[in-house]
Amino acid sequence: MRIGELSRRTGVSVPTIKFYVREGLLPAGELTSPNQASYGEAHVRRLRLIRALLDVGGLSVAAIRGVVMAVDDPAQSVHEVLGAATGPMVPRYDREPGGGIEEARKGVAGLIAARGWQAHPSSPAAEALAVALVALDEVGHGQFVEVLDAYADAAEGVARADLDYVAHHVAREELVESAVVGTVLGDAIFSALRRLAHMDASDRMFGQAAEGGGAG
Amino acid sequence: MRIGELSRRTGVSVPTIKFYVREGLLPAGELTSPNQASYGEAHVRRLRLIRALLDVGGLSVAAIRGVVMAVDDPAQSVHEVLGAATGPMVPRYDREPGGGIEEARKGVAGLIAARGWQAHPSSPAAEALAVALVALDEVGHGQFVEVLDAYADAAEGVARADLDYVAHHVAREELVESAVVGTVLGDAIFSALRRLAHMDASDRMFGQAAEGGGAG
Repeated sequence: MRIGELSRRTGVSVPTIKFYVREGLLPAGELTSPNQASYGEAHVRRLRLIRALLDVGGLSVAAIRGVVMAVDDPAQSVHEVLGAATGPMVPRYDREPGGGIEEARKGVAGLIAARGWQAHPSSPAAEALAVALVALDEVGHGQFVEVLDAYADAAEGVARADLDYVAHHVAREELVESAVVGTVLGDAIFSALRRLAHMDASDRMFGQAAEGGGAG
Repeated sequence: MRIGELSRRTGVSVPTIKFYVREGLLPAGELTSPNQASYGEAHVRRLRLIRALLDVGGLSVAAIRGVVMAVDDPAQSVHEVLGAATGPMVPRYDREPGGGIEEARKGVAGLIAARGWQAHPSSPAAEALAVALVALDEVGHGQFVEVLDAYADAAEGVARADLDYVAHHVAREELVESAVVGTVLGDAIFSALRRLAHMDASDRMFGQAAEGGGAG
């Protein structure tokens, strides 16, 4: 197809498509004449991935370039590509980790070992967890680690549901796009559900439900 | 205490403390002479809350002003203050919701009713959930709603753990600060754990463990 049709199919404007080609995010079309190029289904899929990373993931153009390079590298396994694609989307804090970071890292490594997770203790997710635990400790909530197993149980449940979905609904060539979208939107969905569940718990603890319970 | 000691106790610089007073985030100290003010424990707690909202929550000064106004309003119940404090921290997308938003809102209201949650279907969290579901649908993953109950189960488990922690470890005057910190850092902790659990699941599905399993 020509670039105009690619634009219509994907909802991405022609100048933006050209920008993605210049930036190395999207392969150039096949030249059919000196000033005309032809695009295929792979371009449609790639544009969808780019828009998902940009709109849903909030990634920078530089970060997206890293993801598509991993996707395009035949030497990388699906497992590695999934890690490269979803690794940059770990929520991070701008702050430097404080003094307790080494101890927190040991705690995270211990948790991973105790749960039997095949996950590297030096992965970005493990580091993000350690940094968050240090931040909690710094604001006086170091004892929160006591409830970490409840969080890990919930994370296993959600990860199982995610993989079940992937196994039943996702074609192999769309695996990376789905992993990116699912990782980011799954976070948003879970955090929204967690707040709804908090509202319910807060209502029962501090709201009218609690008052009604006290009177009854 | 004088402003210098308040600065040392909280790690917030004197000019920054003065900025917070000018912006209405921190009450002014009690004047003990025309150019000297005295600060108390309430100022220490308030500065911790402001730093938590800023550093951990990533909130703007304007958003923090809204939170501290809710905290200071005696007409608001603890339940309302918790909602006001944690409401602005629902992750949002910049995009406008697409055409399916009304249907998604009905789906969210149905989920809240089915789970028996005391949570309003027009709350920011419910709206954030509806927007995320529309975004999923737009990228071709509308069937993801099938696994939403697994997410809701996990969210209930985490919310229970959060409230257990609050009930056992948090003094009433620190409830709002803890709710803010716990809401934001809890999201970060959960998303990091979810990624670690994904790595484990991906390894078993696509990695060496899967290959080993196939050979055995």
